[in-house]
Amino acid sequence: MTHFPIRRKATLKDVAHAAGVSISTASRALSNNPIIAESTRRQVQEAAAKLKYRPNAQARALKNSRTNTIGVALPNLQNPYFGQMATTIQNLGRQAGFITIISITNENPNQLNEAINAFIAQQVDGMIIVPHNDSQEALTAVVEQHIPIVCIDREIKDSTIPSVVSDSTPAITEAVHRLIDAQCTPIGFLTGVQNTSTSQQRTKAFQHAAKKAQISDDLIIYDIFDLASGENGAEELIKKGAKSIIAGDSISTAGAIRAFYQLGMIPGEEIALVGFDNFLIFSIQPRPLTVISQDVETMSKQAVKLIMELINGLVISESRILTPTTLEIGETIPVQG
Amino acid sequence: MTHFPIRRKATLKDVAHAAGVSISTASRALSNNPIIAESTRRQVQEAAAKLKYRPNAQARALKNSRTNTIGVALPNLQNPYFGQMATTIQNLGRQAGFITIISITNENPNQLNEAINAFIAQQVDGMIIVPHNDSQEALTAVVEQHIPIVCIDREIKDSTIPSVVSDSTPAITEAVHRLIDAQCTPIGFLTGVQNTSTSQQRTKAFQHAAKKAQISDDLIIYDIFDLASGENGAEELIKKGAKSIIAGDSISTAGAIRAFYQLGMIPGEEIALVGFDNFLIFSIQPRPLTVISQDVETMSKQAVKLIMELINGLVISESRILTPTTLEIGETIPVQG
Repeated sequence: MTHFPIRRKATLKDVAHAAGVSISTASRALSNNPIIAESTRRQVQEAAAKLKYRPNAQARALKNSRTNTIGVALPNLQNPYFGQMATTIQNLGRQAGFITIISITNENPNQLNEAINAFIAQQVDGMIIVPHNDSQEALTAVVEQHIPIVCIDREIKDSTIPSVVSDSTPAITEAVHRLIDAQCTPIGFLTGVQNTSTSQQRTKAFQHAAKKAQISDDLIIYDIFDLASGENGAEELIKKGAKSIIAGDSISTAGAIRAFYQLGMIPGEEIALVGFDNFLIFSIQPRPLTVISQDVETMSKQAVKLIMELINGLVISESRILTPTTLEIGETIPVQG
Repeated sequence: MTHFPIRRKATLKDVAHAAGVSISTASRALSNNPIIAESTRRQVQEAAAKLKYRPNAQARALKNSRTNTIGVALPNLQNPYFGQMATTIQNLGRQAGFITIISITNENPNQLNEAINAFIAQQVDGMIIVPHNDSQEALTAVVEQHIPIVCIDREIKDSTIPSVVSDSTPAITEAVHRLIDAQCTPIGFLTGVQNTSTSQQRTKAFQHAAKKAQISDDLIIYDIFDLASGENGAEELIKKGAKSIIAGDSISTAGAIRAFYQLGMIPGEEIALVGFDNFLIFSIQPRPLTVISQDVETMSKQAVKLIMELINGLVISESRILTPTTLEIGETIPVQG
């Protein structure tokens, strides 16, 4: 038997080669055509089992082993961050001759499983997905079927699935230092519940930067990343004496802005604000926001490059790509002498 | 030969029935199995041609005539309006047991054609799409293949394709009256290039309301709906003496806000503003916006209801559903005595 590179999907040709028969014989054997001798049939079916060859790809594989389709699963499209990611992936995929089909998972592990199953049924050539900590099992199944897959934005702990993630440490560390310099301590931090790698990593980055700078790191609100939670969380942090707020994603940033306007506070005067993501919504504020900016464009490019390498059976250059964040300076941290 | 309702996709069963043979005979005849007599084969293939039966659906149709998949094609996901539409359609589809696959067309008729072809290849049971005035041909091909299709947000002139569209007249008319009452004339109007039904309809609604109220309707900027065009257009309207601006979509509204802040103008004081769509981005302004609000939720529900009726071969209740807009009052029109 020949060896095949990991993660490349076995084709009918691979099965035929492993069983030492022609492609048409392999095809007939797999469809139990009575023309084929029993011993040959068994031989082909054993080869198919060993190679984890998926029989439902068979008809298509006969003509063309590719569907030129990529499946993309994202948590939501209300967050412009994911809208931009989907758009960039689709545009780059198109340049490479691929159709992109997008599925929204609503942060629900069951819906992510459904999306993955739909992608398998649609015989996509590869998937780019934003995983959830509870999606380990569904993802392992994809890997075992040798379907190319890349995680983006978030990653699964101890997984062999290649990932492209944002490193929030540089910008969060710089934000903490600037807020200290501007005498905006104590700093409040709005983060998500700890069921995604991004929430966990951002919280750790803040705690680490605060400890190193010897300031308090106990003003943290853990909640879901949505508008109401951001608004309520910001109000609570202000009540607890926070002089500045770092919001851990774009939606909680919008929530914090809403809280400030409700309380009649102007960000950059009574309260300092560092938001997350450099989006349209933050550029149409009376004072442009200081934000932790993730390079969605570069991340999307890297994910498309990785999935194309995997689809083409190439050895991938890197299995975990970290994209640094940058602090984009607006006017919501007061200038201090 | 029996008659089939318009728009239902012909199944292998239909072909078998029309040719007066069993389903398995029809299947064998269509795959040129030599077991089948030449005369039977010809008979079946003629029936298939008459019914516009698509041979590539054959294998699947044998097991199950449905893929339980809906394809949704949208112009872009940077506009939260379409993000919300995609999310609502997917959630409702899921409740009906359907997987939704989404494709972004970047306002490009070629990309819409590609998306439609991909949906056909993926054997979706139906499509919900936002058409472009130049997509008539691609859409006609879908209809001729009897694949259920519904247009949403925009419609194609003189087309038989069912559509669910927003009627901007009620809210635009009310906006014009309120701006006149608040002495904010002349009114400037930001609209899109006239290659979609929505741009055309909104422009007409403004012109009609202005003429009826006997005010000038010549302060109109026709440009693409994006941030820069909204910003430049608003500046130009102000230079031409506009005392208020109605922005014809959400992105041009954001552009207008940017222009006001650039010029140091506060919407609701020096200039009145009526935006489009009641989105997050407008609720986090220091003064909440007065907006023309489209009922995306209801439109999405109606489109899903229509596509399900078509998929199930039912006679649809209405082929053109108009959803009225409402004016949501914020604080960007000054209050006058």
